[in-house]
Amino acid sequence: MKHSMYRTTVLRLFFTCLTLCLFLFVKAQPPTGPFVMSPRVLSDKKVAFSYLAPSAKEVKLAGGGFGASDVPMIKDSIGTWRVTVGPVIPDIYSYNFVVDGVRVMDPANEYFFPNERFKSSLLDVPGFTPLISAVRDVPHGSVNYEYYTSVEGTTGTVLVYTPPGYDKNSSEKYPVFYLISGTTDTEEAFFKVGNVNFILDNLIAEGKAKPMIVVMPYGNIEARIAEQKGGAKPADPVRDSPDAITRMRRFEQDLTKNVIPFVDKAYRTIPDRDNRAIGGFSRGGGQTLRTAFWNLDKFSWICAYSANLPSDEMESTYASIVSNPESTNKQLNLLWVSVGNEDFLYNDVASFLNYLKSKKINYESLITGGGHTWMNVRTYLTETTQLLFK
Amino acid sequence: MKHSMYRTTVLRLFFTCLTLCLFLFVKAQPPTGPFVMSPRVLSDKKVAFSYLAPSAKEVKLAGGGFGASDVPMIKDSIGTWRVTVGPVIPDIYSYNFVVDGVRVMDPANEYFFPNERFKSSLLDVPGFTPLISAVRDVPHGSVNYEYYTSVEGTTGTVLVYTPPGYDKNSSEKYPVFYLISGTTDTEEAFFKVGNVNFILDNLIAEGKAKPMIVVMPYGNIEARIAEQKGGAKPADPVRDSPDAITRMRRFEQDLTKNVIPFVDKAYRTIPDRDNRAIGGFSRGGGQTLRTAFWNLDKFSWICAYSANLPSDEMESTYASIVSNPESTNKQLNLLWVSVGNEDFLYNDVASFLNYLKSKKINYESLITGGGHTWMNVRTYLTETTQLLFK
Repeated sequence: MKHSMYRTTVLRLFFTCLTLCLFLFVKAQPPTGPFVMSPRVLSDKKVAFSYLAPSAKEVKLAGGGFGASDVPMIKDSIGTWRVTVGPVIPDIYSYNFVVDGVRVMDPANEYFFPNERFKSSLLDVPGFTPLISAVRDVPHGSVNYEYYTSVEGTTGTVLVYTPPGYDKNSSEKYPVFYLISGTTDTEEAFFKVGNVNFILDNLIAEGKAKPMIVVMPYGNIEARIAEQKGGAKPADPVRDSPDAITRMRRFEQDLTKNVIPFVDKAYRTIPDRDNRAIGGFSRGGGQTLRTAFWNLDKFSWICAYSANLPSDEMESTYASIVSNPESTNKQLNLLWVSVGNEDFLYNDVASFLNYLKSKKINYESLITGGGHTWMNVRTYLTETTQLLFK
Repeated sequence: MKHSMYRTTVLRLFFTCLTLCLFLFVKAQPPTGPFVMSPRVLSDKKVAFSYLAPSAKEVKLAGGGFGASDVPMIKDSIGTWRVTVGPVIPDIYSYNFVVDGVRVMDPANEYFFPNERFKSSLLDVPGFTPLISAVRDVPHGSVNYEYYTSVEGTTGTVLVYTPPGYDKNSSEKYPVFYLISGTTDTEEAFFKVGNVNFILDNLIAEGKAKPMIVVMPYGNIEARIAEQKGGAKPADPVRDSPDAITRMRRFEQDLTKNVIPFVDKAYRTIPDRDNRAIGGFSRGGGQTLRTAFWNLDKFSWICAYSANLPSDEMESTYASIVSNPESTNKQLNLLWVSVGNEDFLYNDVASFLNYLKSKKINYESLITGGGHTWMNVRTYLTETTQLLFK
């Protein structure tokens, strides 16, 4: 039974040319290494970068981890710009090439930073022995892209990690960790940059973390509405501005009214405050603290990564939490606050910790080296997930 | 209980500067529209692009759907380059900005083409009524990132769509569609560019497609081994070269020995040939035809999108399929072949169809306008998923 149909359309996107170029390129080259390979991590943990641009006048490697300033690259006879840096400490890095003054991603590298405002390639330098964030030969959980009805009739995307052993036919129920990403990061950041799934796979295999579900929502409700309903997509406002608080309330409403009920219905959760944690990085840390303090009936584990609340907001908005530390301490299984000593929020976070101490509110803290980085986020994830639900 | 720890590390990645810049930028601007908004689809389906680059000398918009050649952009007084094009036919487009001769992605757009060799931003122009690939207000399935043990001890990533109604506690079982992406595309392409999940959500809601599981593996086994085991990451070889066939055999072995058993164990599948389909685009179409013809005991539904096999390979390698068309036709529930009339593979595919006809092997075909594009892939997905498992 043959069925033929002819359709014509105009304005079709031509990948033809591109694909044809790739084909011709492949044909013109020997079978090994016909493409530029970049980046390559060498056995001594030096990293070699390459970028094909015969007509460029100047190419530099830009990435905070690779040098104090941009590193010049050298052009070879066929027009490939190269540089080798390091040895580099095994960790996660982002980088760009700066081509005649223009920042680009590495075309040969499919890993990138999922973000709304900048475009950077990602490099995960493996350890001599596998890092806690590496793909190891252990049972793996999965990360599920789910769609739920969010505010104003929009459709929200949320990522859900289920641990190994989350047998789809079993009846076992799990605690849930809600994890909120920072300004301009998308809901993919804790998955694609944080490797929270592999960290948990490894910690669970070692018996160091309890099997848990991790839920990663998108933090910028206004941008979602603008995107789906039309209109200009707004930027995140300055943290601690009145508009920022209004928006955080809206996020909190979406999380508690839409996301949590969706997750509790679709997954085998233990739907009570003793089995519900919330954590977040940067703006997501502010959303975490506020959402938790507004809803102590729903959360008893709180993790703020590189984030704080101002003292005056604590006094005015969370008076019952501040004025009755004994009750607060009894309700909270964990209040965790961590920050790097080079983080631009370091002083704010330190003040917050001193404030909590003066109010006799218990907390755990971790001060690391480094700045406002995803390297630190991975460290904080590794530390806190071992504390949760125990 | 306070727990403090001081750690120092060197070579930490500084998002500090970046974030600080963002903060300052936000502060310096009015609260509405402090960032460049790009792209914006206007109500008449014209599309406005913007790119902030005060020091650039020339910026163009590059994207096959937007004009015969690159479209010049105009700089405004604060250094934002702008152009509005269209009206544009509602569909999926990729584009770049060419900044003083350098191709970059749109920094303000988080949607991009998941590919190993090029970096392009994606624009999905919505219809006046929602397209079949759009997020509609219907029950949604989910897309799961799963990890399995692949060849040579590597860990493979595979995406698995489960349909709405795949109740994790029910006992209903589903047919499975294995879907293989093309050269240099990653396992995310059918999800992030093809929107196969939303297409199926919508078709299932309309009663036009049977609920099914869709499995999206990664097609470049050699690249995975190189990446995880070290060594240069090889390019895909020219299609139909001996090396290409060897690699396709390796892909087929991974699919049949590792992926299918993994999926049949982790999901509620109906694990027989009548309920197993395979399809693919471009190189993935070649992998589809070969994997199916090597394993007619495992697949009875075959979909080749912009792909074909050469006659001499059909004669030599699949002699039993060619020499006994009656038996072949009885075994195959569907052999589908589609291509665009401007596709660079059009002549090869047309020859393949004529060859099948001459051998009295039944097939269904669809010839569309356009080229080797993901617009066409979406069309082919929409057509074929309505035929499967019926």
